[in-house]
Amino acid sequence: MENLFWIGFAGALIAGLFAWMQAKKVMTYSEGTDRMKKIAASIREGANAYLKQQYTTVFKVFLVVFVILLIMAFATGGKMLSKFTPFAFVTGGVFSMLAGFIGMKIATASNARTAQAASESLNKGLRIAFSSGSVMGFTVVGLGMLDITMWYFILRYACGISDPVTVGNIMVMNGMGASFMALFARVGGGIYTKAADVGADLVGKVEAGIPEDDPRNPATIADNVGDNVGDVAGMGADLYESYVGSILATFSLGAIAGYGFRGMLLPLLLAVVGIICSIIGSFLVKTKEDATQESLLKSLRTGTYTAAVLAAVVAAPLTYVVLGNWGVYIAILCGLVGGCAIGYFTEYYTSDTYKPTQELAAASETGAATIIIGGISLGLKSTMVSILIVAAAVLLSFFCAGGGESFNMGLYGIGIAGVGMLSTLGITLATDAYGPVADNAGGIAEMSGLPDEVRERTDALDSLGNTTAATGKGFAIGSASLTALALLVSYVDIVQSNTEEVLDLSLTNPLMLVGLFVGAMLTFVFSAFTMSAVQKAAQSIVVEVRRQFRSIPGIMEYQADPDYASCVSLCTKGALKEMVAPALLAIVVPILSGLILGPIGVVGLLGGVSVTGFAMAVFMSNAGGAWDNAKKYIEAGHHGGKGSGCHKAAVVGDTVGDPFKDTSGPSLNILIKLCSTVSIVFSGLILTFNLMQLL
Amino acid sequence: MENLFWIGFAGALIAGLFAWMQAKKVMTYSEGTDRMKKIAASIREGANAYLKQQYTTVFKVFLVVFVILLIMAFATGGKMLSKFTPFAFVTGGVFSMLAGFIGMKIATASNARTAQAASESLNKGLRIAFSSGSVMGFTVVGLGMLDITMWYFILRYACGISDPVTVGNIMVMNGMGASFMALFARVGGGIYTKAADVGADLVGKVEAGIPEDDPRNPATIADNVGDNVGDVAGMGADLYESYVGSILATFSLGAIAGYGFRGMLLPLLLAVVGIICSIIGSFLVKTKEDATQESLLKSLRTGTYTAAVLAAVVAAPLTYVVLGNWGVYIAILCGLVGGCAIGYFTEYYTSDTYKPTQELAAASETGAATIIIGGISLGLKSTMVSILIVAAAVLLSFFCAGGGESFNMGLYGIGIAGVGMLSTLGITLATDAYGPVADNAGGIAEMSGLPDEVRERTDALDSLGNTTAATGKGFAIGSASLTALALLVSYVDIVQSNTEEVLDLSLTNPLMLVGLFVGAMLTFVFSAFTMSAVQKAAQSIVVEVRRQFRSIPGIMEYQADPDYASCVSLCTKGALKEMVAPALLAIVVPILSGLILGPIGVVGLLGGVSVTGFAMAVFMSNAGGAWDNAKKYIEAGHHGGKGSGCHKAAVVGDTVGDPFKDTSGPSLNILIKLCSTVSIVFSGLILTFNLMQLL
Repeated sequence: MENLFWIGFAGALIAGLFAWMQAKKVMTYSEGTDRMKKIAASIREGANAYLKQQYTTVFKVFLVVFVILLIMAFATGGKMLSKFTPFAFVTGGVFSMLAGFIGMKIATASNARTAQAASESLNKGLRIAFSSGSVMGFTVVGLGMLDITMWYFILRYACGISDPVTVGNIMVMNGMGASFMALFARVGGGIYTKAADVGADLVGKVEAGIPEDDPRNPATIADNVGDNVGDVAGMGADLYESYVGSILATFSLGAIAGYGFRGMLLPLLLAVVGIICSIIGSFLVKTKEDATQESLLKSLRTGTYTAAVLAAVVAAPLTYVVLGNWGVYIAILCGLVGGCAIGYFTEYYTSDTYKPTQELAAASETGAATIIIGGISLGLKSTMVSILIVAAAVLLSFFCAGGGESFNMGLYGIGIAGVGMLSTLGITLATDAYGPVADNAGGIAEMSGLPDEVRERTDALDSLGNTTAATGKGFAIGSASLTALALLVSYVDIVQSNTEEVLDLSLTNPLMLVGLFVGAMLTFVFSAFTMSAVQKAAQSIVVEVRRQFRSIPGIMEYQADPDYASCVSLCTKGALKEMVAPALLAIVVPILSGLILGPIGVVGLLGGVSVTGFAMAVFMSNAGGAWDNAKKYIEAGHHGGKGSGCHKAAVVGDTVGDPFKDTSGPSLNILIKLCSTVSIVFSGLILTFNLMQLL
Repeated sequence: MENLFWIGFAGALIAGLFAWMQAKKVMTYSEGTDRMKKIAASIREGANAYLKQQYTTVFKVFLVVFVILLIMAFATGGKMLSKFTPFAFVTGGVFSMLAGFIGMKIATASNARTAQAASESLNKGLRIAFSSGSVMGFTVVGLGMLDITMWYFILRYACGISDPVTVGNIMVMNGMGASFMALFARVGGGIYTKAADVGADLVGKVEAGIPEDDPRNPATIADNVGDNVGDVAGMGADLYESYVGSILATFSLGAIAGYGFRGMLLPLLLAVVGIICSIIGSFLVKTKEDATQESLLKSLRTGTYTAAVLAAVVAAPLTYVVLGNWGVYIAILCGLVGGCAIGYFTEYYTSDTYKPTQELAAASETGAATIIIGGISLGLKSTMVSILIVAAAVLLSFFCAGGGESFNMGLYGIGIAGVGMLSTLGITLATDAYGPVADNAGGIAEMSGLPDEVRERTDALDSLGNTTAATGKGFAIGSASLTALALLVSYVDIVQSNTEEVLDLSLTNPLMLVGLFVGAMLTFVFSAFTMSAVQKAAQSIVVEVRRQFRSIPGIMEYQADPDYASCVSLCTKGALKEMVAPALLAIVVPILSGLILGPIGVVGLLGGVSVTGFAMAVFMSNAGGAWDNAKKYIEAGHHGGKGSGCHKAAVVGDTVGDPFKDTSGPSLNILIKLCSTVSIVFSGLILTFNLMQLL
């Protein structure tokens, strides 16, 4: 049965081909008028310039870590660290980078084309934007399959390692590179996009009273660049990391559970099935010309739900043939259903068609303060459902997969539930990545003065994108909680196999409790760093935009062009400067805690960061989404509509929500996995040198 | 040595006498002019009326719980629950209620007197307000000593129980009643005070542009009533619960650690020493007439630090004589020093004499959104120091008290560190409780038209109160984290002693992980409930104040009196309606989790709620304090001063911070202990009936 691993390559090939076809389809379209081409080129330029500088910075950090890993691996003759680790680390990083980069390339090529297509019909606009999203979605899963299968074959056949536990443990370290790259991309991109967005809104909308994406606003190009480097490149790297991380963690647990290589084959085949089902689903995404927002959403949902149901059906015989265990199939179902449920409730809390966001909009009647309090309490409250779903998924998948008899078999169930949740990532990511393209298309339509009906169509597409983006974040964080638990157990297993002493992992152990506290601290401080980074970068944009309005005469009368490039470069500088500290936190804190508290403290830290990171991520994403849509709800004419006191209050809410939902919140799911993989990679070091040994 | 327990009564007597002397001193002062008397009477009336209704509601809930406990205890012949528990529960509740009630009585009697004294001199104002605070401080510690010593003598001599573990385990249940009462008082009072405050500010200050405490504002009396029922009665009950909880948890751990009754004697004697040192310290609190804010703060600090140093000195021989273990003395020092350090850093993050709050004030330059983002990130960042201090205190006190050899001896160290932290509560609470009195005095001065210099003096006293209040909250939450860990271990010990099966408390156990998630959820949802309660109640006040301004002609011209009573009654209704749900959460969630997940899940829940509750409490208190002081910093003339755009932005921040720092934040320290004691009380039930047994 082991020969079936080549199917991983086939999956990668299929995904790659489909992505290529979609990209070709997009590229045959026209980019529209000269003005549209010019604007699209500026956005492309800004995004390329930013990514180039980001990759340069990240390259340096990666080089340092790579050298440290090399020394650890080769100086100790592979005792403290496997010799494959430094290379697995780099591969993970490069693939994660590629996932984001390709997504960004296609997105910046599709934005003007989407605007042009939308000027012909709504359905054409949807198809182009969705095709662009599909390129990203299938690139991510294709690269993931390639990375995983390649390493598997290298380890198994080029190096001849026959012990599944060893293979699993080496491969899981690949995840550290992917997570590290993803964290830079999410945090850097997140700071960039929100600094530009907040800066543009605060001066343009609030002070000068000009509309969103108005060409007179000096920060408007930076804002559109931000959509691409944050919401596209950042998200691509992020979900690459989630996808690969969930599969690799399950590889490692499969080996520990005694399933041997079959335990690894199952998640791989499941992923390939997911790719094919996602392709089928994506053919179902289309709409009629008189589409309402509901029917647009319905067409996207038809695609994703069909893919999920198909995957669920095929997974049954597959699981039975590979493992002969129906319980594991139930675990996969838990993941699929849990993911959809989290997605649904995310929508419930953040969409203005439901009560919570409508009530939040009503809180604007008594001013900015009450809508802020209301949004924070909505976000905090919304953690309940997500946590209950994850709790149910964990327990069900654990016990159904046989956790009652064999602890490790149960844990494999938790891991495979995470893989199930992300198996149809190809299409869920496509629906998610289409949002920023539609958003950019709207910006280009506005800036190049296309007729109002075009802007209305792109707005319809964009507003839907907010909902799918929230759902996508729900999947990312939901799967992260399962993967993080799986990685936590891998860590314990690796440490325990390298020491004679039996670790006391009891919660009442003070080292464990202190670890839990430090984990919570890491979540809180990381969120603080990313939020204040946005605030600082945004303040510099505010100052610059105000300066331009003041010192360049004729901007307001369309007689002079603002200096777009200065805002683009300020955002780039701000993001690069501020992204390093939070990313390093995720590496330094686990290692330092380990050196002081020993491995038990690290287990506590991983538990603490997983639990609080999950809760904070849900809180921040949902509060931010609800504020955004409450503002849109008011703009649609409720509570006095645009320009009213309520609208002003809602804009404050939306601005506070920006870093919540697009910087701090979505970075947390990467943080919790990066902490785990860092701990795994440095487990040898920590086991050898730690203060607690001296006591 | 056991005879020395009578010293507990002596301590209660000394504290009571001192409180009585201070009360007498306050009452000899005049209440000032007729108008002042009238206003003071209205505040007193409102506060009495609210507390009466609050106690009625709480009485009903207590009755239900009491009956349930009675049935559990007597129907099972004491097997599932000790027969003493229902009565211990009620006593704890009554004493906690009394602590808050007496504090409120003296505070409402002192406010006009303080205003009158301040009209004579600043020093006299300080002395009266501080004496009033002292009555509260020493009432709390005196009642605590009485409660604890009484129960000890009943169990030991009236009932003849000679096993220290049994005595410890029964006494710890007393804490459940105290915590439950305290939660109602904190949450109910917190909702009341912030609904009134937010409502009064939003319409009065922001919309109508009249100053704080202006007699034309219909919500102004309600606002002043709120200070008494929330910041005084709520805080009194809260700190009673913290004080008694820390001592009782240590009683229980002392017995488990094998120290026998001597392990209980030490915390008791330490508390008595703390009372005497606090009395000595409080004689040192005085100031000169030309006092600046720094010299006022210095005079309060001289008192508290002297008391702490004296207590530290006396504790050394005491610990050695009672236990013969120097390590335990170091644990006590850890508590004392840790408490002072948390207090200091709380001040650093929230006082406008330091950089963080000054930078926060600067964030108002770019509007309300950036000051909100800045405050949230400041609060999140500030958790770092507090968590590191608690982590260091936990590890040091554990290992110094002998945790390396005997696990339980180490845990006793953690418990006694909590007692050390609160040993000088008499004086720290006095400095804390003096704040609301000074605040009310300022309100009365404003409403009764006393000369500006009087208002300036009361403002100086009040602004200092903000700092001491933040420090007080630091002590409450710092000690709560230590007490919660001690209670967690007591729970495990009680459960383990009642079952044959060895509990798998490993963090990798999925039941434990799910418990952790549920604990985090409880913290988040509880915070959401309390915040939205304030928001709802405040919105009703806003509507009412707007209605009065509109429909009562002549209010603005001082020709007609507003209807104060309607705001008072709206606040009362709102607080009573909204306080029950969050308080029940704290009881229902642990029991329900236990019935589903079994005792292991409960341990996880207690760990989760302790860690996230601590981090959230620090975050919320510090963010709220910093917003408040950033506003005051701007009002002092920075960034454009009063009425500027920056000031408006800062008022939004302050309003968001109100429920953070006075409702949700300070309730969390009670929540985490109530969860523990509820779990202990219902441990028999959960052990007998839980779903996991069926698997």
